[in-house]
Amino acid sequence: MTLNITINLPYKTIAVFGTGSVGQTIAKKLVHLGHTVVIGTRNVSESLAKTESDGMGGQPISNLIEANPTLKIATFAEDKLGADLIILAVSGKAALSALELAGELPAGQIVLDITNPLDFSNGFPPSLFTPSTTSLSEQIQAKYPHIHIVKSLNTMANNLMVNPTQLKESGVNFICGNDNEAKNHIKTLLKSFGWEESSIMDLGDLVGARGMEMSLPLWIRVFQSRGNGNFNWKIVD
Amino acid sequence: MTLNITINLPYKTIAVFGTGSVGQTIAKKLVHLGHTVVIGTRNVSESLAKTESDGMGGQPISNLIEANPTLKIATFAEDKLGADLIILAVSGKAALSALELAGELPAGQIVLDITNPLDFSNGFPPSLFTPSTTSLSEQIQAKYPHIHIVKSLNTMANNLMVNPTQLKESGVNFICGNDNEAKNHIKTLLKSFGWEESSIMDLGDLVGARGMEMSLPLWIRVFQSRGNGNFNWKIVD
Repeated sequence: MTLNITINLPYKTIAVFGTGSVGQTIAKKLVHLGHTVVIGTRNVSESLAKTESDGMGGQPISNLIEANPTLKIATFAEDKLGADLIILAVSGKAALSALELAGELPAGQIVLDITNPLDFSNGFPPSLFTPSTTSLSEQIQAKYPHIHIVKSLNTMANNLMVNPTQLKESGVNFICGNDNEAKNHIKTLLKSFGWEESSIMDLGDLVGARGMEMSLPLWIRVFQSRGNGNFNWKIVD
Repeated sequence: MTLNITINLPYKTIAVFGTGSVGQTIAKKLVHLGHTVVIGTRNVSESLAKTESDGMGGQPISNLIEANPTLKIATFAEDKLGADLIILAVSGKAALSALELAGELPAGQIVLDITNPLDFSNGFPPSLFTPSTTSLSEQIQAKYPHIHIVKSLNTMANNLMVNPTQLKESGVNFICGNDNEAKNHIKTLLKSFGWEESSIMDLGDLVGARGMEMSLPLWIRVFQSRGNGNFNWKIVD
């Protein structure tokens, strides 16, 4: 008798760029979902030497790695090697330089861009460092036309990105990008995070990232009014 | 026997600046609520001579006045005289010049600002003509420090501004401004439009207008995706 067993191997190698609270939250979720995850950073030894939390819910990255032994850390350049997906979860200011440090990216590389062009140079609340005629996502896409930038998850607190059902209603999760196949790849990932198909709103091509990024100042103001970020936008009609 | 009858006279003189679809929708609602309403415009005879709709749901202003005989039209300068409230419902580009044409405004004049700094000079979708470090409301307030600018109603389609219960859920209506008494005046007006107290979210001082105005590009993108503006934002938690 032959026993036919089909083993699904959904595990993919995912490079998460960014060691802050967003990168940590995403990386932890991906590890729990069974993916092979490598966190990318500018300087590995400097990142591992940090002993303070980032004040935004992140912990020292060495603690995260200790608690999740399968999680690896590497430079952006090493991290991107063999990654089915790069998740750009650095601060907006660092987005372009992180990709520069990563070096040559293969054609068709899918990059999920969670960044926001927040400018904290004049304190809190931040302004945006991109004008309203473009978006950070479009700027990245213009610099790397051979890769597929998909924007999503940038309009909510990081704990909700990977656990939307902790709210009474999940609300909406916007997505946009120029390549439909890449968007479908990310939609599948979002569903694995707990987003229902009906909560994912496709805003078309990457021009949609303008509105997604420009909505941040309103989010921040509501955050200030409420005193917490445990909320999301919903579209009612 | 003396019969004591208290007659409530809620009717106030309200100047609505703007003859477009937003101004018309607001003026019509105010007339129906029993207010004395005067629509303000740059040039009365030119406005009355228009025979075409504005393509945004507005009709020729002469038709509106014919259908609502108590509704008057005047220049901005005449319109502001004796108005308890000015509602600024012109296009964003025309906001400052409309107030300039209105001439001297009394100290403490309450102005409800519904405008958005939309720049259509490069077509649709518009960008914003104010940088993210300020807002059109703040620019107006800075130019006229002796009046009270209150921002509200700018984050939804005009039919919903005055009839929010036509949606299954009303969603949120943001308000901000530097003077609490002026904000309370506007909150009372909003409630008379059908907004429940729990739907009105006070974002504090006029800095809150930045986020409210910068949320427009996302609204417009959702409008494009849906093909209609019959929706509103709700905050879920």
